[in-house]
Amino acid sequence: MVVIDVLRATSAICTALENGVERIKPVASVAEAEKWKAKGHIGAAERNGEIVPGFDLGNSPIAYIERKEELAGKSVVLTTTNGTKAIDIASEKETVVIGALNNLNALCKWLLEQDQSVLILASGWKDKFNLEDTICAGAIANQLIESGHFKADEDSTIAAKFIYRSARDNMFAFLRASSHRRRLRRLNLNEDVKYCLTPNNLSTIPILRDGYLIRLNVHTPPPSIQETAAAKSA
Amino acid sequence: MVVIDVLRATSAICTALENGVERIKPVASVAEAEKWKAKGHIGAAERNGEIVPGFDLGNSPIAYIERKEELAGKSVVLTTTNGTKAIDIASEKETVVIGALNNLNALCKWLLEQDQSVLILASGWKDKFNLEDTICAGAIANQLIESGHFKADEDSTIAAKFIYRSARDNMFAFLRASSHRRRLRRLNLNEDVKYCLTPNNLSTIPILRDGYLIRLNVHTPPPSIQETAAAKSA
Repeated sequence: MVVIDVLRATSAICTALENGVERIKPVASVAEAEKWKAKGHIGAAERNGEIVPGFDLGNSPIAYIERKEELAGKSVVLTTTNGTKAIDIASEKETVVIGALNNLNALCKWLLEQDQSVLILASGWKDKFNLEDTICAGAIANQLIESGHFKADEDSTIAAKFIYRSARDNMFAFLRASSHRRRLRRLNLNEDVKYCLTPNNLSTIPILRDGYLIRLNVHTPPPSIQETAAAKSA
Repeated sequence: MVVIDVLRATSAICTALENGVERIKPVASVAEAEKWKAKGHIGAAERNGEIVPGFDLGNSPIAYIERKEELAGKSVVLTTTNGTKAIDIASEKETVVIGALNNLNALCKWLLEQDQSVLILASGWKDKFNLEDTICAGAIANQLIESGHFKADEDSTIAAKFIYRSARDNMFAFLRASSHRRRLRRLNLNEDVKYCLTPNNLSTIPILRDGYLIRLNVHTPPPSIQETAAAKSA
C-alpha cells in the first residue's frame, strides 16, 4: 500500500530520510509523540498546518533540509493532521511505502519491479477528499497503467488519472483554488507548497518496518545466492 | 439538493415524469415498495441492475417510454439499489430535485434562477464513488461556474468539473472501462446506457413534495400578486 499526503507529511518524510534522518516513527496522536520525544526521539508535530506548541519541528519539508546536519542519523517521532493517521490505518497491510510527487518516478519504478497489486491511500483533509493527494495518486496510476503492466479496476483510480492529466502541466495554478491552498495561504507556506509540487527531486522510498519509516535500499540489493557462491569461489 | 444516479434511477425518474407518469414514490426497501404496490401504486423495483421478482418494472428509462400509454396519469412506487437510497438521505433537505444528463440544461437553468447554494449528491454504487454520477455532477458544476454566478468551494466539486471536461466529448467511450458499465454489460443494457448518457433529451425537473417526486412546473408559474390584480381590474 502507498500512503500519500502531499501537503505536507509524506513530502516531508521523503525529504527527511533522503537528507540523513535515520528513521521516523509515525504516530497518530500528539500525546504519543510526546512520549517518544521523552524517550529521546526528536519531536515533530503538526496540527492544522502549524507546529504544535512544545515541538520545534512540524511537517515542513524545507525545515528538514535546513536542519540537515543536526538531524543526520537521528530518530524522529512525527504526528500530523492527516498523513500519520493514514499511515496508522495502512499499517495492517504487509508492505507500506510512502508516496509524494517528490519521489514519483523512483516509487513507480520500484512498484513496477514488485509486480504486485497496488492500493493507494490518499490521506485527504480530515477524512475528506482533497485535490493534491488525488493528483499524486493519479500520477502513480497513470505511470503504472502506461507501462502496460497494470490495469485500473476502480472508478476512483480512473478518475484520479484524469484529474492528474488535467493538472500535470501546471499543478501550482491548478491547485490555486483548492481548499488546502486556501488553508495554507494564511500561513505563508508558498515555498513549501512549491517544493511539494515539484516531481522527482528525490529518489528515496520510505518503507514501514517494525513501526518505523526507513529508507528502502533499492540500489544495493542483498547479494543473491548465486552471486554469494560466485564470490566464495573467487 | 440535487440527487444524481445516472445509471439508471434518476434518468428513469426524469423520463417517467416527462412521459406522463403522474407521481413517483421513492422508497428505500423492496418491502416498502410491495406495501405501496398493494395500495394500488404501480410497482417498480431494481436490485443489482435487474428487475426484482414480483415486479414488472425496474429502472430502465426506455421501459417507461415503451409503456407510456399504460402509465399515463399513474402513481408509481420505485426502489433501486442506489438512487432511491440517496433520495431518502436527501429528503431531510428543504428542496430536493432530481438530476440526470438527460435534463442537464433545464435543471441548470432552474438552479441559476433560484440563486441559492447548491449541494449535489452523486449516488455512486453501494456507497462507493462512481464515474458516471461524478461526470453528471461535474457537468452541473461546470455550467453553474461558467455562468459566473456560482463558485465551487470544495475540492470534490473542482475535481468533478475536470472529470466532466475530460469525458464530455465522448462519454460512452470514457465510461467503457468504468465499473458500472462492466456490471451492466452482462445484462445487455447498451441501449439504456446510451439513452442515459444523452444530454438534454428531456426538460422535466422532478422535485420531491410530500414524499412524491412530481414535475416541477417551470413554464407556468402561478400569477404574481401584481398580475392577479391586473387580471381583476381588467
